[in-house]
Amino acid sequence: MTNPEHYAAARAAGRLNLVPFVSVDHMMALLRAEGVGRALEEIAAHVEADFLRWPDFEKTPRLASHSLEGVIELMPTTDGRDYAFKYVNGHPKNLRDGLQTVTAFGVLADVATGYPALLSEMTILTALRTAAVSALAARALARPESRVMAVVGNGAQAEFQILAFRRLTGVREARLFDLDPWASEKCLRNLAGFDIRATVARTIEEAVEGADVITTVTADKSRAAILTDNMVGAGQHLNAVGGDCPGKTELHPDILRRADIFVEHPEQTRIEGEIQQLAPDHPVTELWRVLAGQAPGRRSREAITLFDSVGFAIEDFSALRWLRGKVAAGAPCLQIDLLADPDEPRDLFGMVRRAGLQPD
Amino acid sequence: MTNPEHYAAARAAGRLNLVPFVSVDHMMALLRAEGVGRALEEIAAHVEADFLRWPDFEKTPRLASHSLEGVIELMPTTDGRDYAFKYVNGHPKNLRDGLQTVTAFGVLADVATGYPALLSEMTILTALRTAAVSALAARALARPESRVMAVVGNGAQAEFQILAFRRLTGVREARLFDLDPWASEKCLRNLAGFDIRATVARTIEEAVEGADVITTVTADKSRAAILTDNMVGAGQHLNAVGGDCPGKTELHPDILRRADIFVEHPEQTRIEGEIQQLAPDHPVTELWRVLAGQAPGRRSREAITLFDSVGFAIEDFSALRWLRGKVAAGAPCLQIDLLADPDEPRDLFGMVRRAGLQPD
Repeated sequence: MTNPEHYAAARAAGRLNLVPFVSVDHMMALLRAEGVGRALEEIAAHVEADFLRWPDFEKTPRLASHSLEGVIELMPTTDGRDYAFKYVNGHPKNLRDGLQTVTAFGVLADVATGYPALLSEMTILTALRTAAVSALAARALARPESRVMAVVGNGAQAEFQILAFRRLTGVREARLFDLDPWASEKCLRNLAGFDIRATVARTIEEAVEGADVITTVTADKSRAAILTDNMVGAGQHLNAVGGDCPGKTELHPDILRRADIFVEHPEQTRIEGEIQQLAPDHPVTELWRVLAGQAPGRRSREAITLFDSVGFAIEDFSALRWLRGKVAAGAPCLQIDLLADPDEPRDLFGMVRRAGLQPD
Repeated sequence: MTNPEHYAAARAAGRLNLVPFVSVDHMMALLRAEGVGRALEEIAAHVEADFLRWPDFEKTPRLASHSLEGVIELMPTTDGRDYAFKYVNGHPKNLRDGLQTVTAFGVLADVATGYPALLSEMTILTALRTAAVSALAARALARPESRVMAVVGNGAQAEFQILAFRRLTGVREARLFDLDPWASEKCLRNLAGFDIRATVARTIEEAVEGADVITTVTADKSRAAILTDNMVGAGQHLNAVGGDCPGKTELHPDILRRADIFVEHPEQTRIEGEIQQLAPDHPVTELWRVLAGQAPGRRSREAITLFDSVGFAIEDFSALRWLRGKVAAGAPCLQIDLLADPDEPRDLFGMVRRAGLQPD
């Protein structure tokens, strides 16, 4: 259906005011119906398709509002046809208060009309797309025979990471490490029944030694050095997910200097990623170029590859595009009355009056 | 209730996932209950209170994504305690397709936790706050004895403007002009019963001659000169609402050169307002300074004052703050399941599994 036809049909049905809303419950129902592995795989495919047309997208730095305790960000992008943005916060101290450190929601809209087309929870969806992007990067950058991943930081993102690697790469074993043993045990429990061998390491060294892939996904908002130089060996692929805002890093800079570094959007990563610790002209490669065959990925079996992931708006765009397809195919959602829809666009006040407004 | 108490109570009630959503229907019900004049007056009071603490706010240019046919914008701001943003589009050609040229929705969030606290339609709310700000500016800038306003452009914003001026200023008569007589007739009908004398002018000259206040609020996305220099006389107050993005203006630059110009946020207005037609250092006065007594407003009875209104994020913040008070006092809304709320913040995946996810 073309755009004008779509809106004509919606108008005829008296539904121009309604926007599908995918709640947290709806998202969980969708994952029950699809399976999380399949969802991760499909989202990765949507991200890959969009990365392959990277130049088509409008790329702006996310608009961040920093406070002492956290950050609230708006992450918009558009390909000229669809427009997406995500609202996302990052508040490490929320954990102490029993709140999520990261919550998110997002909107997909129609560029031709400016009308929102989909509103969705994105706390779960962000976890899915972040993991999907990590696995997509590893599929392109890690040694093809990679079987063992270490996961340092076993919080909200850990299981999603492991299942994405299980689905998209050859990884079949996950070694878990967290400063809080409860977190690792939680991961083990949650992964029960999935076809992945998961074990808990007593030390970070035990987790990472000989692992093919090392994922760091901790939540501390500080310059940490979760991994130090001596822990990282030839041929390993590092997937650095947790360091994602100014002042928040996970890797010792010596590791960065030994690694071939791959990023999403360099302008953003130099501010927010691990490479904020390096000179602003330190060479990095854009992941999309590797996927598109425009730049080399892994140079040798011995090279240390690093995906310095901070999360970019195009990934949310892809995830929302995936979700729109699901909703169009009947995934559960709630139609919410978000848009004013007077019979005549210029008669907004008349709509209010006809709803019973009396002069005051 | 302090923040931690609030969240503890919400957690105890199992409601941390819910965010109040004010739909278009809810907004209309609220206006029925409050009266539109009272709502305009209260919103103006909230805007004024926030303008008086202008330096407390984080001010960033709106993040605009322009396409051939329109613009989609995100407008965030924060006072360090609350964070607000609005999504708003501007698509003049929508009118031809029976769609709103401007639709909007917005969110108020808690800076301390990053959690959204309120989601609302903002198509109607933006119309209310835009009119409230115009009247607030005129109350400070127009001659105190102003009684007659001309309204050039009788689309979706016109009635709101007139009722705001009726409520907040001495204006008792509105002269309507639109290139499309239907629009003026629509205004007349909608204003029936309100205590305002409204008439339709056959020409723009007839509308504006001798008027105390001239409001221009047309939707054309072009460099128009709705008003030319000869139409504007000594002592008039110009309220230029329609020119609000690059390439979209309503006043001939000669008028601007004769007027004392007042703006919301100069950095934004120089790009989007009427003054985009002037030199980048042309003197302007920030409206908040006039309200705060830090800058003179009208210099003389003969001066031509111009409020070059483009709409600024703080005004939406104020409007959402007003709305939050109404919701807290029982205004109708829908609690929507927007936020993931696992029993343990790090157990996001466990929440999904316990909702019935099977391994795939």
